[in-house]
Amino acid sequence: MAELYFEDFKVGDRFVTPGKTLTEKEIIDFARVYDPQEFHLDPVAAKQTIYGGLIASGFQTLAFGFRLVYDTGILTAASMGSPGFDELRWLKPVRPGDTLHVEMEVTESRPSQSKPDRGIMRAAYRYLNQKGEAVLTYTAMHLLKRKPA
Amino acid sequence: MAELYFEDFKVGDRFVTPGKTLTEKEIIDFARVYDPQEFHLDPVAAKQTIYGGLIASGFQTLAFGFRLVYDTGILTAASMGSPGFDELRWLKPVRPGDTLHVEMEVTESRPSQSKPDRGIMRAAYRYLNQKGEAVLTYTAMHLLKRKPA
Repeated sequence: MAELYFEDFKVGDRFVTPGKTLTEKEIIDFARVYDPQEFHLDPVAAKQTIYGGLIASGFQTLAFGFRLVYDTGILTAASMGSPGFDELRWLKPVRPGDTLHVEMEVTESRPSQSKPDRGIMRAAYRYLNQKGEAVLTYTAMHLLKRKPA
Repeated sequence: MAELYFEDFKVGDRFVTPGKTLTEKEIIDFARVYDPQEFHLDPVAAKQTIYGGLIASGFQTLAFGFRLVYDTGILTAASMGSPGFDELRWLKPVRPGDTLHVEMEVTESRPSQSKPDRGIMRAAYRYLNQKGEAVLTYTAMHLLKRKPA
């Protein structure tokens, strides 16, 4: 795809990723390293919890969806990282075999006051499962390179 | 340690974790799966970016510090997951070999209105590096089991 820079993201622009399935093995592998709560790690013990079975760590869901966005290529040329995210809400459990996709909408865009090479773009993210249910929402700030002269 | 439940977390209580070092291999392994931006994935290409070298994905830093908190045992008995986090701010890059620890302070605590088995605890998190610099701050909501009768 064409390289996108700060100037290419306009308020109201929307991007939708393809879907990808999260497996039980991926959920357990992540949990073992980063979030070994029983409902993320142990399919048997998870049955006795309020979730009734294994669910993905919210940290994993967050990163898994970012990868879907990144793989579209829209951020490849311009991304300089993020200063912060707001209002993360995990709305529904993500279970083994769920297929997630991500919707992103640009909500704000302004050039940096102090650094002429970059701008700050704010975007609203929604992660949806195969039933169309929102499982995670948040807004993110992105530092983006301005278009080369 | 003693099992802690919702009632054991009082506003103003503070917890501090031991430190743990994040390696270059861990940073690259995470980046390959979840966040393959060049400043997270490729130590050579990272030198040409604004960061001047490899830095950890912010998603990884977030989860790495949660693991430090979880390993203290304070959440083991009571945690029922989290409905959301607010005001995540990545303040400083985290580089290979950095040693992080986490400070957590309880800022709010209220029983669930609808579900008598649980309460909601809000806590302010600060992740610090070996120089005492804050690298990540946020507030988290925790669903916590109430003490068994």
